[in-house]
Amino acid sequence: MVRSVENGGGAVEILPDHFDPTAVVPEPLPKVVESDAELVNGKSNGDREIVLGRNVHTTCLEVTEPDADDDFTGDKDAFMASVLARYRKSLLERTKHHLGYPYNLDFDYGALAQLQHFSINNLGDPFIESNYGVHSRQFEVGVLDWFARLWEIEKDEYWGYITNCGTEGNLHGILVGREVFPDGILYASRETHYSVFKAARMYRMECVKVDTLVSGEIDCADFKVKLLAHKDKPAIINVNIGTTVKGAVDDLDLVIQTLEESGFTHDRFYIHCDGALFGLMMPFVKRAPKVSFKKPIGSVSVSGHKFVGCPMPCGVQITRLEHINALSRDVEYLASRDATIMGSRNGHAPIFLWYTLNRKGYKGFQKEVQKCLRNAHYLKDRLLDAGISAMLNELSSTVVFERPWDEEFVRRWQLACQGNIAHVVVMPNVTIDKLDDFLNELVEKRSTWYQDGKVKPPCIATEVGSENCLCTLHK
Amino acid sequence: MVRSVENGGGAVEILPDHFDPTAVVPEPLPKVVESDAELVNGKSNGDREIVLGRNVHTTCLEVTEPDADDDFTGDKDAFMASVLARYRKSLLERTKHHLGYPYNLDFDYGALAQLQHFSINNLGDPFIESNYGVHSRQFEVGVLDWFARLWEIEKDEYWGYITNCGTEGNLHGILVGREVFPDGILYASRETHYSVFKAARMYRMECVKVDTLVSGEIDCADFKVKLLAHKDKPAIINVNIGTTVKGAVDDLDLVIQTLEESGFTHDRFYIHCDGALFGLMMPFVKRAPKVSFKKPIGSVSVSGHKFVGCPMPCGVQITRLEHINALSRDVEYLASRDATIMGSRNGHAPIFLWYTLNRKGYKGFQKEVQKCLRNAHYLKDRLLDAGISAMLNELSSTVVFERPWDEEFVRRWQLACQGNIAHVVVMPNVTIDKLDDFLNELVEKRSTWYQDGKVKPPCIATEVGSENCLCTLHK
Repeated sequence: MVRSVENGGGAVEILPDHFDPTAVVPEPLPKVVESDAELVNGKSNGDREIVLGRNVHTTCLEVTEPDADDDFTGDKDAFMASVLARYRKSLLERTKHHLGYPYNLDFDYGALAQLQHFSINNLGDPFIESNYGVHSRQFEVGVLDWFARLWEIEKDEYWGYITNCGTEGNLHGILVGREVFPDGILYASRETHYSVFKAARMYRMECVKVDTLVSGEIDCADFKVKLLAHKDKPAIINVNIGTTVKGAVDDLDLVIQTLEESGFTHDRFYIHCDGALFGLMMPFVKRAPKVSFKKPIGSVSVSGHKFVGCPMPCGVQITRLEHINALSRDVEYLASRDATIMGSRNGHAPIFLWYTLNRKGYKGFQKEVQKCLRNAHYLKDRLLDAGISAMLNELSSTVVFERPWDEEFVRRWQLACQGNIAHVVVMPNVTIDKLDDFLNELVEKRSTWYQDGKVKPPCIATEVGSENCLCTLHK
Repeated sequence: MVRSVENGGGAVEILPDHFDPTAVVPEPLPKVVESDAELVNGKSNGDREIVLGRNVHTTCLEVTEPDADDDFTGDKDAFMASVLARYRKSLLERTKHHLGYPYNLDFDYGALAQLQHFSINNLGDPFIESNYGVHSRQFEVGVLDWFARLWEIEKDEYWGYITNCGTEGNLHGILVGREVFPDGILYASRETHYSVFKAARMYRMECVKVDTLVSGEIDCADFKVKLLAHKDKPAIINVNIGTTVKGAVDDLDLVIQTLEESGFTHDRFYIHCDGALFGLMMPFVKRAPKVSFKKPIGSVSVSGHKFVGCPMPCGVQITRLEHINALSRDVEYLASRDATIMGSRNGHAPIFLWYTLNRKGYKGFQKEVQKCLRNAHYLKDRLLDAGISAMLNELSSTVVFERPWDEEFVRRWQLACQGNIAHVVVMPNVTIDKLDDFLNELVEKRSTWYQDGKVKPPCIATEVGSENCLCTLHK
């Protein structure tokens, strides 16, 4: 009696009398929305006017309705294959010329391609299986345990999860801080990642910006002044383990000492460490102030797509279980244990991380960190040798230098810029050969930009200190 | 003179004098953290005690340090290949027996495997290219345009982005609502997804819960009472286009009418439509109240991994450009245009969506919606025929029925449960054959659970209405 409706014929008998198949709209195709030609066209790539909701419309790949005979002709398949082949080629070129963002583009996850056919979702808590069986919690918790060990917290004392990116880690860490201290004030240095200020705004928290040193580190003298001005309220502090622009590492020990000296006992502050890129490099660098839960910190986050390398953004968030237990009591009535920011979570990301951690291990990361630091020093020295202002923080692989005059050059090498400075983040995939290509091109271009003396290289003494500035005034 | 450090020998000359390569910690391997055996062991899978931060530790896949000779012996590769092969097999089995979550598990993205080697990140705004070149904005905007057309808003009047999941869409929509009306009160029905209440908590918004009808729809009589009690403040309303448990569709037109009747002019309310699953099915169902930006709504979100199907969670968020322009003015000083919740964004998700939309088109989705509705009716009728209480909302493919007595059965079929009810969401990959397997197993199991009359099937009249309840009292 039971027949599949797909097999055609005889299927009608299994449908209920009151079900009307014509209840499905026969012609659902919406009308084509007329686009305003003036807005969509006439914007060249060089024209970088920022108008929300417009620019990319000029180059976007429209979704088109398949023709009725596409299955027969194969035209659609051929079209899509050609789009993808062209796109792949552009990705190869763009990947080759990338220097500005802290992403390790050197990975091979071919062994995991077999898993792309599954809809893997770690919805909910990593430590509590939901009824959805297609998950990867066993990999996720394995990865979390590895990081818990790195940051020195016992398995039964931490809670954490694999996030969608560094921003989610910061959003989570600061939310936990706010739930621990509902009237706490958020302190973050000026050179902190924008996601931390976004969190303050989203969560309606009072936020105090702290000055920075030339290196980009938090200025603990200014921090103390600001703490003393707000002694009545608990402190929630974002500590940067590598700032976005200069790769500066805040001195965690000095931050804690400043808190203590200002009269904040350990039950009156919460520290979130934003480890974005460098949280995973620093454990392998001697003299670096150690990030450890043996110190009075509340949470640490790090990105997974940065030093480890991953096809899509992801991150790791670790906090103390006691904080989450306090949080989850309140969350419980809302839903079945929801202590993450996102409900559904990408189950592939933990497998990528698990795979790389297993293959490289602590020793492999150590080697790569060593290589990155060597190459970063090489780049900085060659820049200075060529008369180009440059700075490299001692514990960092982020080389800061004068912003190239030509935006086309900036875009070609995908440099991240702020004001008069640009940076290159030396990641494991950045070889000496690549740096040489970049340096040679920069030196050559500079000789044309500045040849007639009308335009001069910018002074970046305020950004990097006069000792690192080679402008006409300082050299 | 320039030599790669990787090539060994002669590399020292390129290093600066002051750089000390031994600055890298020689023995970074942290000590193994001792785990408390009592906590880690002794929890069987059947024991579902929920203790945060513990259960999955029993089954997790530890990350181990590679041996020095792994490259030579291949032992590590062999071990990892065997773990992945076993995992793949379990995913096949779990995918086969999945019925409870609204995920379309039927997809083939083999053509996109070539892109897994790239770190694709659409960081920042979809419409403004960042300097990071390895992105997929051209696909993202193509997908957004398709949805803008579906929900009837002009290209130059919308803003949107591909999110990490339905929760991110809700978090964004409600944040935009709060920025438009900083003192607005959030209204949401009791059967609303928990992420909406999470948003209220995160954003420190006043939140009013509205009653629901038996169907799961918002009760507009109660909504009116609550609106009239808070006439002094603007209203931010979450409208469910398919609730999580019962698949109930709130009547958008009635919600708007209720607002108007209660004295709320269009400049005093903001409506966010949570389209999670059904936002993409309903446009193809006749008689369904249409979601359209021609009506006074502020934003719509829908999940990408649900009806479309995708290896990882993702979603689409569309709002009015005017709201984002207002929002971004404030955000601008924080950073270079940051109007999303997450900063870094998965660049693969838009390509998956683009690929499926192109292949299936509006007509393809129409066919699949028709199939799902037919199969859902089939399931509901066969449940009722077998004497099992069941309900199916007219515009839905979510079949609600009595919760199976045995938790093992619930886990095997990955049913989502709440109190005395369970549900099956009939997605495109759920065939009549699969439903028959499920039905036959359920009927057989029930005859053993309830054979001696000591245990009786639960009454679910309050959840689904007495007319759909077949318990001993109501049948």
